[in-house]
Amino acid sequence: MSVWESEIHEECGVFGVISPECTDVANVSYYGLYALQHRGQESCGIVVNDDGIFVSHKDLGLVNEVFTDETLSRLPQGTMAVGHVRYGTTGKTTRANCQPIEVNHQKGHMALAHNGNLSNAAALRNALELSGAIFHTTSDTETIAYIITRERLQSASIEEALSRAMNTLDGAYSLILMSPQKLICARDPYGFRPLCYGQTPDGTYVIASESCAIQAVGGTVIRDVEPGEILVFSKNGVMSRREHCKAKKKSLCIFEYIYFARPDSVIDSVPVHAARIRAGHILAKHYPAEADLVIGVPDSGLDAALGFAEASGIPYGVGLIKNKYIGRTFIAPNGRLDKVKIKLSAIECAVKGKRIVLVDDSIVRGTTSGRIVTLLREAGAKEIHMRISSPPFLHPCYYGTDIDSQEHLIACKHTIPEICKMIGADSLGYLPADALYQLTGNGAFCSACFTGNYPTSIPETTGKDRFEARLSQRKE
Amino acid sequence: MSVWESEIHEECGVFGVISPECTDVANVSYYGLYALQHRGQESCGIVVNDDGIFVSHKDLGLVNEVFTDETLSRLPQGTMAVGHVRYGTTGKTTRANCQPIEVNHQKGHMALAHNGNLSNAAALRNALELSGAIFHTTSDTETIAYIITRERLQSASIEEALSRAMNTLDGAYSLILMSPQKLICARDPYGFRPLCYGQTPDGTYVIASESCAIQAVGGTVIRDVEPGEILVFSKNGVMSRREHCKAKKKSLCIFEYIYFARPDSVIDSVPVHAARIRAGHILAKHYPAEADLVIGVPDSGLDAALGFAEASGIPYGVGLIKNKYIGRTFIAPNGRLDKVKIKLSAIECAVKGKRIVLVDDSIVRGTTSGRIVTLLREAGAKEIHMRISSPPFLHPCYYGTDIDSQEHLIACKHTIPEICKMIGADSLGYLPADALYQLTGNGAFCSACFTGNYPTSIPETTGKDRFEARLSQRKE
Amino acid sequence: MSVWESEIHEECGVFGVISPECTDVANVSYYGLYALQHRGQESCGIVVNDDGIFVSHKDLGLVNEVFTDETLSRLPQGTMAVGHVRYGTTGKTTRANCQPIEVNHQKGHMALAHNGNLSNAAALRNALELSGAIFHTTSDTETIAYIITRERLQSASIEEALSRAMNTLDGAYSLILMSPQKLICARDPYGFRPLCYGQTPDGTYVIASESCAIQAVGGTVIRDVEPGEILVFSKNGVMSRREHCKAKKKSLCIFEYIYFARPDSVIDSVPVHAARIRAGHILAKHYPAEADLVIGVPDSGLDAALGFAEASGIPYGVGLIKNKYIGRTFIAPNGRLDKVKIKLSAIECAVKGKRIVLVDDSIVRGTTSGRIVTLLREAGAKEIHMRISSPPFLHPCYYGTDIDSQEHLIACKHTIPEICKMIGADSLGYLPADALYQLTGNGAFCSACFTGNYPTSIPETTGKDRFEARLSQRKE
Amino acid sequence: MSVWESEIHEECGVFGVISPECTDVANVSYYGLYALQHRGQESCGIVVNDDGIFVSHKDLGLVNEVFTDETLSRLPQGTMAVGHVRYGTTGKTTRANCQPIEVNHQKGHMALAHNGNLSNAAALRNALELSGAIFHTTSDTETIAYIITRERLQSASIEEALSRAMNTLDGAYSLILMSPQKLICARDPYGFRPLCYGQTPDGTYVIASESCAIQAVGGTVIRDVEPGEILVFSKNGVMSRREHCKAKKKSLCIFEYIYFARPDSVIDSVPVHAARIRAGHILAKHYPAEADLVIGVPDSGLDAALGFAEASGIPYGVGLIKNKYIGRTFIAPNGRLDKVKIKLSAIECAVKGKRIVLVDDSIVRGTTSGRIVTLLREAGAKEIHMRISSPPFLHPCYYGTDIDSQEHLIACKHTIPEICKMIGADSLGYLPADALYQLTGNGAFCSACFTGNYPTSIPETTGKDRFEARLSQRKE
Repeated sequence: MSVWESEIHEECGVFGVISPECTDVANVSYYGLYALQHRGQESCGIVVNDDGIFVSHKDLGLVNEVFTDETLSRLPQGTMAVGHVRYGTTGKTTRANCQPIEVNHQKGHMALAHNGNLSNAAALRNALELSGAIFHTTSDTETIAYIITRERLQSASIEEALSRAMNTLDGAYSLILMSPQKLICARDPYGFRPLCYGQTPDGTYVIASESCAIQAVGGTVIRDVEPGEILVFSKNGVMSRREHCKAKKKSLCIFEYIYFARPDSVIDSVPVHAARIRAGHILAKHYPAEADLVIGVPDSGLDAALGFAEASGIPYGVGLIKNKYIGRTFIAPNGRLDKVKIKLSAIECAVKGKRIVLVDDSIVRGTTSGRIVTLLREAGAKEIHMRISSPPFLHPCYYGTDIDSQEHLIACKHTIPEICKMIGADSLGYLPADALYQLTGNGAFCSACFTGNYPTSIPETTGKDRFEARLSQRKE
Repeated sequence: MSVWESEIHEECGVFGVISPECTDVANVSYYGLYALQHRGQESCGIVVNDDGIFVSHKDLGLVNEVFTDETLSRLPQGTMAVGHVRYGTTGKTTRANCQPIEVNHQKGHMALAHNGNLSNAAALRNALELSGAIFHTTSDTETIAYIITRERLQSASIEEALSRAMNTLDGAYSLILMSPQKLICARDPYGFRPLCYGQTPDGTYVIASESCAIQAVGGTVIRDVEPGEILVFSKNGVMSRREHCKAKKKSLCIFEYIYFARPDSVIDSVPVHAARIRAGHILAKHYPAEADLVIGVPDSGLDAALGFAEASGIPYGVGLIKNKYIGRTFIAPNGRLDKVKIKLSAIECAVKGKRIVLVDDSIVRGTTSGRIVTLLREAGAKEIHMRISSPPFLHPCYYGTDIDSQEHLIACKHTIPEICKMIGADSLGYLPADALYQLTGNGAFCSACFTGNYPTSIPETTGKDRFEARLSQRKE
Repeated sequence: MSVWESEIHEECGVFGVISPECTDVANVSYYGLYALQHRGQESCGIVVNDDGIFVSHKDLGLVNEVFTDETLSRLPQGTMAVGHVRYGTTGKTTRANCQPIEVNHQKGHMALAHNGNLSNAAALRNALELSGAIFHTTSDTETIAYIITRERLQSASIEEALSRAMNTLDGAYSLILMSPQKLICARDPYGFRPLCYGQTPDGTYVIASESCAIQAVGGTVIRDVEPGEILVFSKNGVMSRREHCKAKKKSLCIFEYIYFARPDSVIDSVPVHAARIRAGHILAKHYPAEADLVIGVPDSGLDAALGFAEASGIPYGVGLIKNKYIGRTFIAPNGRLDKVKIKLSAIECAVKGKRIVLVDDSIVRGTTSGRIVTLLREAGAKEIHMRISSPPFLHPCYYGTDIDSQEHLIACKHTIPEICKMIGADSLGYLPADALYQLTGNGAFCSACFTGNYPTSIPETTGKDRFEARLSQRKE
Repeated sequence: MSVWESEIHEECGVFGVISPECTDVANVSYYGLYALQHRGQESCGIVVNDDGIFVSHKDLGLVNEVFTDETLSRLPQGTMAVGHVRYGTTGKTTRANCQPIEVNHQKGHMALAHNGNLSNAAALRNALELSGAIFHTTSDTETIAYIITRERLQSASIEEALSRAMNTLDGAYSLILMSPQKLICARDPYGFRPLCYGQTPDGTYVIASESCAIQAVGGTVIRDVEPGEILVFSKNGVMSRREHCKAKKKSLCIFEYIYFARPDSVIDSVPVHAARIRAGHILAKHYPAEADLVIGVPDSGLDAALGFAEASGIPYGVGLIKNKYIGRTFIAPNGRLDKVKIKLSAIECAVKGKRIVLVDDSIVRGTTSGRIVTLLREAGAKEIHMRISSPPFLHPCYYGTDIDSQEHLIACKHTIPEICKMIGADSLGYLPADALYQLTGNGAFCSACFTGNYPTSIPETTGKDRFEARLSQRKE
């Protein structure tokens, strides 16, 4: 799956910073977003709080495209900032949807960054519109901003408004919210998406979707934000609120471990790299192979390949390399050339004449896997035993993962032997769904996309696509 | 005033088109906006209605910067479109404020383009926020969109919602509003800003701030929209609504004739060029001069100069020329060079040894006028008699004209003889305020910026600037 | 001719500056090129001499597109600079052809800016290539650079090399050449193209194609460079060399007065504005008309219209206005709209019911003239008497003017009565060729494009186009 | 060395294609240059030969920045193309130096792409200038173009001119040369830089610096071009010329195997990946370590780390990951943040409490190595044993590798124990220079930068820097 263009997407990454003194919080956010870039490559933004005045820069593009020396220098010094990287499906990627969202209101400005997906977004928006709300974007985040604002009219503080709002919001959300005087973060009661915070030596607090961003800015992780918890950072220090939400079964998205998160991140106390190595161990145990070499599909299959090699005793090697210059803006002019060949190449001297175990993190449509198998056979591989470090995708996600539609998911239409044949492998093994708990050593995760067991009630009219489709079909 | 960077600004121009069949309405809008570019150079936008689906492109920049072959080709064919050119003071020019504003709502999409300024904007926004509205922009137009949307929840049609909204909105507004099936325009009950409509030979209706835009797209003007009138264009033809608003004294901004409008436009049946020629006649009668040559400051002083020459019998000539390549993006690197010299130059052979009548449309701070007088003296002019085709600016405008603050207006602090001395002229004459009615032949205009006679009640806390200042000072 | 896109082009403008101390010579050049922008809009460049180190910036685009705050700030302070604006026919406009040309050579760097066209360019290039020269561009200027470099190998100084080179170069050239320690300019022995120099109050010398650029930077014109003269500016002051060239008949391009030059320039002691006024006088005398109003086609027909009005006693007025926002990048999307209508509009109240004298500077193909006549008739003009302030174009230019090819020139194929009918005018009068001398009061000009009397021998295989065609047809 | 910004640079990559029929040779070149991007990231270009007409696009930037859908679509179909990627030191990177160089000459156009560095460039250029040549660039390639052009005046064919020129050129050059009817490549008699050719199934020949580019376009490698060989591709097939050059000792740059080339390339019959694995074997034998884990510095240290693990039996693991979004345009705003931390991060769960063997390809200044050691210690590594898969850099390269100046090379000033202490490692081992031959299994390489044994005579005034310094110091 990890090749050419990824077919599964996380929706976002969030980052926040609050410093005891006015300083270069925009730069800190810039570095933090850099470390979170893998969570969203379509747009990004930073809002700086300069003594109550909010100044922002947001645009479509990667962090290093949107933030140049010139655009960064236009952001002032400040004591707080909030940043966001966003993934969005192509057609709907517009500047209007760039985050953090900013709201001007007489009860105080607000900037809001969100990772996740509300499962009751359509119903909430419907009710808001009927009470006179107007929307500029098609994103959930604007709905969240509305609900917080309305609660705020009758709340003593912004954190009280947020805690009330959390009783209305269903689904997945890791939020960072900045008011003129406070930086606030919250994680939904199920904890679908990661969120943690830490501190740098000078006393600056940083909040981030993943721990790798805290380390990138020189900080030390303090802990994960708890499911349902609100943390309020201000001049008076850090305050936690938890009482407002009933306890739910913790349901972190298991695909964060398998693919989304960076291998150097630690989520809910489990290192991502270790989880992936364990996936390789499990595969080696459940689907052993007689082979000469274990290789991974770069980059996301490499850790599980290492784990497979460790557990099986078969030597680990490098058999495929990725062209590191192929970025978001790569164009593929019409023609007869195989695009997978531009992005990946086989190392003939490593694979020729060998029986290969090939490890990847997932199979979506199967096309790319088929091409990689061909690439290796052309380079002389004798046998190819494909091992996948996740179970087959069978169900839609309502919590912020953009899996391909069911009609395209190969596992929805074909048996595993059929898939094996379609991609041209000699054998194929998926990580068993009932072994997923071994990745993390606990059962505190959501694996609905593999199992169909959703932790929350799900919308009758399914999901985001239909919701957006309805939006654009409305007539006067 | 017309030199270097203009110190007085109109806020916007609007354009709408509805065709009997699906066609290139984006191109028509593009040409229409080109003809209205003088009304706003900061940003522009077009929204096309393709059978109920709205597709838009908006950005900061001139029409020919924002709309390239590529961006125009991304707009579909359609039956309706609405366009906008915008002027905004520098600091607040952001993409978020680009118009037309688009609203997604289950009662139907809406695109809204607005020229004018509400005098009760702050009060309306205040009330909306307290009832739970959130704002993304700092512009009046979003307030208007909110009020129409709220009225719509209890109205049978969008035009009924608009007519109800008009009972709430105070001040200046010429609006074009597009719903999935209708194109609607309205002018405030005082008619502060121009608005007219016409038709092209193929039956397409076009609405525009000025008649020049109708002619640019090959159309013929039908008539001005009446103050307080709503016009609804749809497949069923054109329908006018007027009963909803009480009759008010017609109050077109007189500065449209003096400076804003294009000389080939006809507003409320009075040709702009003719009004300017008459201003020259009046000046020649009230402030004659013994002189050898009449020249105008290009471009906006030329018509009145021609009128002065006609009425006085003194020969008309060209004494100053403007560098036509100095655009919006002209930069003026630090240095010792006189920037007026880059933009304007005197024609020595025309002015040397002569007594000159120099006609301009207004004086704001006086600095530029002083430099032009110096330029002419350096080229050998013997005497310079300055004549201004408007009265002195003394009062703020609440209806959409961005005059400089009173502390900078030279006429607020100095007598006419003092100004004459400050700019270095031999004599100085302003058009008398009580002769303004001769420009149009009627009294149906607003001249509050010269006289202080405001047609409507005005906000206690004055105007836009303070309103926006308050917005950014709010703390939690 | 002056409408839509001009069909006749000057090739270039040159600018040089040398200051007694290290200062912002790039800024001075920037302002100077701004004033010369009308001589070339395709590309521009500045080379700064910072104590012998040359730093340059050149690119395709207008002066204010190529030089931004950022690009200007990359140019250092220095004591000398040379700048260039260039016009080139579309297909051959490449960055490689941008000027000034820079040459690295052990006898010293050289930067070279050139306005004009060599009539023996093809022969010179041919000889150079056969002696082992290689060319990167298709421009004459590289040929000139080669010849100067070769002469330099056997000359005591760069100015001696230049004076030797001038014995080889035929045709039109106004050159500015910068070496590490000297700024040098030269004009060909016929003086086909203008060149003058002046001084600013702080002792800085400036050289420019037209006097308007000297005035734009705050300088005073000293005098025109004489035909055949070399001027050497250095720390030791100014030195003139004239003895190296035989005297020729002075042959300034008469079209500089009629169209190319800015009206505030003075060329070879004759003010351009005055020459154009005189063209109007001549037309009024030779081709009088019974009419109510004289109007000019903006911008280049306005002066002659004023002259026609003066001499005829018919009132001068404004009947056409030009959209000032239509720049080089204007795109004209496909469609049914008349592009002349976007660019020009008639002022109905001024022309309705009137008999009009319409003055323009030239007719090339006739299409634009026809559209303007139509525009005026649609606005209600009763009669239209067209007067052209130049004789008909009949012959190609070998000295740097890019007139349309003879097959497109309307006057090569039709009689004047035919042209009058084709453009729909009621009468038509061209300035008589034998009255041209009255424009300048002397006969020291080239009018070969009207008369066919070429001051120099002309190439057998005609001109530039064939030369370039050959270049690209060569096979191995 | 492989971190942050690489301190050693290859100068270029070349690519050529000739097809039996007119086709999309620009697209093929685009994909080929993509695969060679690692050899030069500063600029790139493609020249297409469309039946004798050359059309090119070249600019500063990466392949996917310079070639967009739009710029690619401006290149025509053709039968041949030549492409180039270039690395240049920052200050001298200008558009003028972009390759392929194009020469217009009556003996036929020529486009020339070059990888390497002439050791007698200064002397050749000096002689050319004294015979009247002028240079537009500061690159060797223009010198080569001149010499070929001059030889051509007295040669029967372009390949004869090239073979004569090769008797004059000293040093490193792998060239591709395109004339209207032929595509020609040549490699210097020592074979300093790689060059090979292959064929695609439709009969198209492709030439490339590395075999990976031939595979990327679907081709099969035929063989390496021999040192001193000229290959002429035309409609008549392929013809080899070798007799013109005396046999020399083959001297391929050994650093191609260690760092420059892509691991999937095969150079002079030796697979790069295998050579790097062998480097790890050698290190494990010469500098064993008591350790728990072997890790490599991504990306270029990974293969040797794998080899070390294989030979030592110590487990291979992933301990460092690289942020894959840090591209050429990454900016590092001022501040207190450690930039290495942005680019690289340690995986704590993998390295904590472990004794680590850390493998990298080279040490230049030592700063980056020191930071990586710190990073691993902060993540809890107990011991760090650094192993370098090349000998220490001690001598300048005259054949196209841009090593840092000797004053910055840590090994020129410090002993290995000192370096070990400076970077904070527990032990340090470099690949022994006398074991280099084991990488390739032969002695046919240049290792002068490690040993000082130069295969050719070297310039008295050393190298490129001084030559260029002289160029810019010349005064008139």
